[in-house]
Amino acid sequence: MTDPFAPTPRDRFTFGLWTVGNPGADPFGSRVRPSISPVEIVQGLAKAGAYGVNLHDNDLVPFDASASERDRIVAEFQAALKDCGMKVPMATTNLFSHPVFRDGAFTASDPKVRAFALRKAKHAIELGVELGASTIVFWGGREGVESDAARDARDAIRWFRECLDYLGDWSQAQDYQLRFALEAKPNEPRGDIYLPTTGHMLHFIETLRNKDMCGVNPEVAHENMPGLSMVHAVAQAMEADKLFHIDLNAQRIGRYDQDLRFASEDLKGAFFLVRLLEGTGGYPRYEGMRHFDAHAYRTEDIDGVWDFARGCMRSYRILAEKAAAFDQDAEVQEILAANHADAEDIGALTAAYSTESDAALEALDLDPDALAARGHRYERLDQLAMEHIMGVRQG
Amino acid sequence: MTDPFAPTPRDRFTFGLWTVGNPGADPFGSRVRPSISPVEIVQGLAKAGAYGVNLHDNDLVPFDASASERDRIVAEFQAALKDCGMKVPMATTNLFSHPVFRDGAFTASDPKVRAFALRKAKHAIELGVELGASTIVFWGGREGVESDAARDARDAIRWFRECLDYLGDWSQAQDYQLRFALEAKPNEPRGDIYLPTTGHMLHFIETLRNKDMCGVNPEVAHENMPGLSMVHAVAQAMEADKLFHIDLNAQRIGRYDQDLRFASEDLKGAFFLVRLLEGTGGYPRYEGMRHFDAHAYRTEDIDGVWDFARGCMRSYRILAEKAAAFDQDAEVQEILAANHADAEDIGALTAAYSTESDAALEALDLDPDALAARGHRYERLDQLAMEHIMGVRQG
Amino acid sequence: MTDPFAPTPRDRFTFGLWTVGNPGADPFGSRVRPSISPVEIVQGLAKAGAYGVNLHDNDLVPFDASASERDRIVAEFQAALKDCGMKVPMATTNLFSHPVFRDGAFTASDPKVRAFALRKAKHAIELGVELGASTIVFWGGREGVESDAARDARDAIRWFRECLDYLGDWSQAQDYQLRFALEAKPNEPRGDIYLPTTGHMLHFIETLRNKDMCGVNPEVAHENMPGLSMVHAVAQAMEADKLFHIDLNAQRIGRYDQDLRFASEDLKGAFFLVRLLEGTGGYPRYEGMRHFDAHAYRTEDIDGVWDFARGCMRSYRILAEKAAAFDQDAEVQEILAANHADAEDIGALTAAYSTESDAALEALDLDPDALAARGHRYERLDQLAMEHIMGVRQG
Amino acid sequence: MTDPFAPTPRDRFTFGLWTVGNPGADPFGSRVRPSISPVEIVQGLAKAGAYGVNLHDNDLVPFDASASERDRIVAEFQAALKDCGMKVPMATTNLFSHPVFRDGAFTASDPKVRAFALRKAKHAIELGVELGASTIVFWGGREGVESDAARDARDAIRWFRECLDYLGDWSQAQDYQLRFALEAKPNEPRGDIYLPTTGHMLHFIETLRNKDMCGVNPEVAHENMPGLSMVHAVAQAMEADKLFHIDLNAQRIGRYDQDLRFASEDLKGAFFLVRLLEGTGGYPRYEGMRHFDAHAYRTEDIDGVWDFARGCMRSYRILAEKAAAFDQDAEVQEILAANHADAEDIGALTAAYSTESDAALEALDLDPDALAARGHRYERLDQLAMEHIMGVRQG
Repeated sequence: MTDPFAPTPRDRFTFGLWTVGNPGADPFGSRVRPSISPVEIVQGLAKAGAYGVNLHDNDLVPFDASASERDRIVAEFQAALKDCGMKVPMATTNLFSHPVFRDGAFTASDPKVRAFALRKAKHAIELGVELGASTIVFWGGREGVESDAARDARDAIRWFRECLDYLGDWSQAQDYQLRFALEAKPNEPRGDIYLPTTGHMLHFIETLRNKDMCGVNPEVAHENMPGLSMVHAVAQAMEADKLFHIDLNAQRIGRYDQDLRFASEDLKGAFFLVRLLEGTGGYPRYEGMRHFDAHAYRTEDIDGVWDFARGCMRSYRILAEKAAAFDQDAEVQEILAANHADAEDIGALTAAYSTESDAALEALDLDPDALAARGHRYERLDQLAMEHIMGVRQG
Repeated sequence: MTDPFAPTPRDRFTFGLWTVGNPGADPFGSRVRPSISPVEIVQGLAKAGAYGVNLHDNDLVPFDASASERDRIVAEFQAALKDCGMKVPMATTNLFSHPVFRDGAFTASDPKVRAFALRKAKHAIELGVELGASTIVFWGGREGVESDAARDARDAIRWFRECLDYLGDWSQAQDYQLRFALEAKPNEPRGDIYLPTTGHMLHFIETLRNKDMCGVNPEVAHENMPGLSMVHAVAQAMEADKLFHIDLNAQRIGRYDQDLRFASEDLKGAFFLVRLLEGTGGYPRYEGMRHFDAHAYRTEDIDGVWDFARGCMRSYRILAEKAAAFDQDAEVQEILAANHADAEDIGALTAAYSTESDAALEALDLDPDALAARGHRYERLDQLAMEHIMGVRQG
Repeated sequence: MTDPFAPTPRDRFTFGLWTVGNPGADPFGSRVRPSISPVEIVQGLAKAGAYGVNLHDNDLVPFDASASERDRIVAEFQAALKDCGMKVPMATTNLFSHPVFRDGAFTASDPKVRAFALRKAKHAIELGVELGASTIVFWGGREGVESDAARDARDAIRWFRECLDYLGDWSQAQDYQLRFALEAKPNEPRGDIYLPTTGHMLHFIETLRNKDMCGVNPEVAHENMPGLSMVHAVAQAMEADKLFHIDLNAQRIGRYDQDLRFASEDLKGAFFLVRLLEGTGGYPRYEGMRHFDAHAYRTEDIDGVWDFARGCMRSYRILAEKAAAFDQDAEVQEILAANHADAEDIGALTAAYSTESDAALEALDLDPDALAARGHRYERLDQLAMEHIMGVRQG
Repeated sequence: MTDPFAPTPRDRFTFGLWTVGNPGADPFGSRVRPSISPVEIVQGLAKAGAYGVNLHDNDLVPFDASASERDRIVAEFQAALKDCGMKVPMATTNLFSHPVFRDGAFTASDPKVRAFALRKAKHAIELGVELGASTIVFWGGREGVESDAARDARDAIRWFRECLDYLGDWSQAQDYQLRFALEAKPNEPRGDIYLPTTGHMLHFIETLRNKDMCGVNPEVAHENMPGLSMVHAVAQAMEADKLFHIDLNAQRIGRYDQDLRFASEDLKGAFFLVRLLEGTGGYPRYEGMRHFDAHAYRTEDIDGVWDFARGCMRSYRILAEKAAAFDQDAEVQEILAANHADAEDIGALTAAYSTESDAALEALDLDPDALAARGHRYERLDQLAMEHIMGVRQG
């Protein structure tokens, strides 16, 4: 019997080297799992059914590696990728682990640190290009402060922009065909990180010189930490053609960055997110990578790590099937149609101002009390969604 | 003896009719205070030292008022303004109280509700113009959902944009000299409100047809509810020349919308916000209104309402004085100078890409371990800020 | 065909008059639904399959009712209960709506307000007894402060205790066979409410004179508002034989009090809560009421209110079936057995100190590195729970 | 000139070895500071004016130390303590860092892990006794779950109780004169930690066999993470004579565990906390240790660490002075007196039930509308508190 939820290449499932490779250290305890080499990770992910693997420069090449070490490591890694039929769709730069970035990278007050960060990012992009990546993610983990006494946030934003403009210009000068995907996070490891949400990042992109090559990489956990809607953030990015990449995981609101197995918290949010990505209501499917940026609980050994990886993909597939069923449910369609009905084509009036439309708008016979009287049946509609999620809705 | 913290017209302190006029009802209890008429509010605010008063259309003119009633009310109000030397710098539209907006106004699924909302907004703008307002605030309190089953967020964003484009076009056709200030809020009264933060709103503005006339109206409570930094939100808006208005109050993170007296929570956040608005570090002062969007505790009678109003302004003045003293503190200046030092003009290298700058960047001798070794003295710097706030720092 | 999820009397589903009777007002908008009379609510709930109905005194009898009005209303209500075969298992006192309670009821600084509150609570208990209630809930909605300047919290806790001791003594003097169930909430409508969680309340109960007749009434929304685990709160109460009542609903963390339809948020939390209540792992089933303290979205008309009520009960039934299936899943049992194995009966050693057990403990051969090496398979176990919840786990 | 805010022995300021010794690692980056030896920490703290130093067993003695190494280390440490006149008032056990505790210590499902944890705790207590500690803190950092599928919380609570009962019995059998102080935390490093707040812990203590020797150790950050009031938690503990120790630091609500410099966030909360500890309103001063459980920002070098330590103590002293001034402010006293007035001695009526008091209660002439009309002047009172905090209130 075929597993209907087994991952396929069309699913575009990817994992970071740092995700299944996470050794389970946290602020209160040391690592609990042995290292898995990048080559083993590629093999394991291929076996589990993933499409590709992503990486920070230092996930593959140690910070202090010599040029020849680097080349040897990269060659080995490429051989494993080829053997396994795995892609590297995305690469990124670790601008947060080394103490040099303790006060930021692109927004560090010290211009030497900014220069070092910029140079490291360039070299990481070169590595990404060498591995075939077409998307470069920027997550500025240290771009923030514990105290606003340290720096004017406007200076920080300007320096951040200068670095991204520089890298965009440089990248185009090299004729790389790249897209930059910017990832926001509100806090941790800094007290407050600049450009804390996908919304702030989308605005920042509009101020960049190479804004067309820049989009966002929203992450479930990062939007959910402050309790914001990941679905709305992704929708806003999609509506603006700026969803360039996505980080899937799970998170409880108002906690440390948990990076839990996808859909293991807020199942309803995961359902509506998958529905958005898979295409619904006349909107096209998102064709980019479904990247899982998560890691196994610290209670797990290596077997548990692969349980975790399989669970991420499997839950996505399950929810995709449920989302399609929800859209095809006749009662769902009926409630939505009733709420969106526009028999008199009034939507056209409000869509654009003209003296004619305005006269027509003013002339409309609109009784607010009558309009207010109608119930929307959203309790029923939401219950239908929950019953699809729980698998008890019969077609 | 003159009170050094007494408000002056230069402070540009304004209050909404709905703030001091708030009668103290909440979801669990009825109103506790008698109504204060708009005329009495104008008189009271003038006496307390405010510069102006702002309003929603229905704060002044009841939803069901006839044209003649409206005109009578407006005339009385204008007379009071004139008598008291008070301005109406900002007006806005109540698109949330009447049941007709139970599923949204500009983003309601029902096109008739959108049409009604648009028409009401036009009339509220006309009222604002008549009263001399130059800023129109848009707070879409009902523009959201409890369940994402109800509507695709992309449709909602598109409808929101259509309405604002319409109003911008119409407003320019009337030759009104207006600026629109958009106010974000993440939730309450809806489960999730679209464009939930100042960042999302700044991005949305970039997608508007009349984007130059549109900016933001960040509110302390709305940014703090999800635990985001109001200081960074305002800094991002200022850096983009988009701070058109501001709503000052106080709020505990992760709670219902509290609208507390300015600076009565998160005193440090209030200090850095005032410092930003008053101008620091070579950046100019914000010249717009300091609007207090807050209300007295439900425990207060009318006397307590005026205690509340005076407290808002007084705390702002106190913090402004402290912010200036902090900037002039020699030890503060010394720590900041050490952290921002750029003896070799390396900041210029990272500021813009060119083949020359890039060669120079690659040639830089940068030792990450050496750069990492330096302590930043931010604990001391932040303690100095706290001691200025607490008034125990001697010059 | 019989609906396998239809409510039955054994389910002990109850609703408050104030839940389906909620007219949809909120801090930003007026009511949207007509009133439903208590009698109509009883009829509607009976039809929907509920076991009983609960009430605040003023849900049934207006604050200002005369004695004869009260008696007439109560008689009518009792007739309806009898007609419909409905019970009133719980009654409570509204100590929060009237302005007299603006600074608290049992913890008000003004001793006259405390006296008034105490007297009102007595009369509400008499009403409850008359209607057959065996549980009296106490939710101190106004028992808090916006500023700790107002009152020493120790005085407040003492006054709270005095009132409950009084009511317990009085109730026993009347020979009422009652249990008091205390309900905690962290904030809203006050800035901070005393005894903010079920844990604080459990401790407070231990300090009461009539502590045996007192237990807790945990509410999903109230525990989830600050992001605490409702499952752990209920487990702690059950372990101490103090779960006297429960309020079921749903809530997003860090928001205003939402009182959403049961299981419409945090489906996994709802699953584990139902599993706890229905009995699992050798622990007995909770035999008390499953009270839904929630209300329909403001978008709903009366039909939507009944959709809401049916949805609460239906989701509970669905989750109860899934919880049982999870417990019977062989792979689940295997993982749990492996993790809890105690072949050498070491659990007995740590269960109680004696010189013998202590010597044995010290003599045990325990290798921390070996113990640390084992993976727990919790990723798999949790995924199994999710697949049961999603209805895709085949037996 | 004497510094009025210099720490004195009477202040009972203590720091943990792990606080100033924190090397600045976090989940996203490696350590940034060199180790400071325990002896150097003792010397540094003595110089800074602290009264004592606290420790986890493994802060001083490595996990794998031999008996002779342990004895040598302890001897050296005791010599340094003696030289510096420093005390060790509190000791605790690290039951969270080693991988053996990955699924808990006292609540681990594996009974061997529970046995190992119990034995380690015993040995840590012996170390504490040797160093003169009279308080043993228990913080169960790993006592929780990521998924409630793993374990029934009631089992966990029972195992936790067994271990504490064991340690209490054993400790009394040794004739140690110790008090146990239990510390709660809601999450991090586990998804949910059992007994998540001071309230839950206070209740748990009531279920212990040796409950008289057990109290709580509330921590500002741990209560503030979920947005609860530290002031109310401490007040509840004090009212029950259960405040045995306290952990002072600062924290933003809804974030990772920040352990910031005391009073560097939520200055108002810190003010009211210090006021509680220093004694106010007729309640006695807390005579135990003021322990700072915090660490310097990762941006700091060793100098910054000592800036941090001095800042903690200095802010406490400053706030203590302000709290006393607030209590002596005539306007404050007047507002409080008006709100607490009880001319007719009605408080005595509600303090205890008797047939006589009950008859008197029922006979009282209480007009709720008249009682409701009074304003409480809490806006003014809170503003006075803020002005004392800001140092602008003139006596």
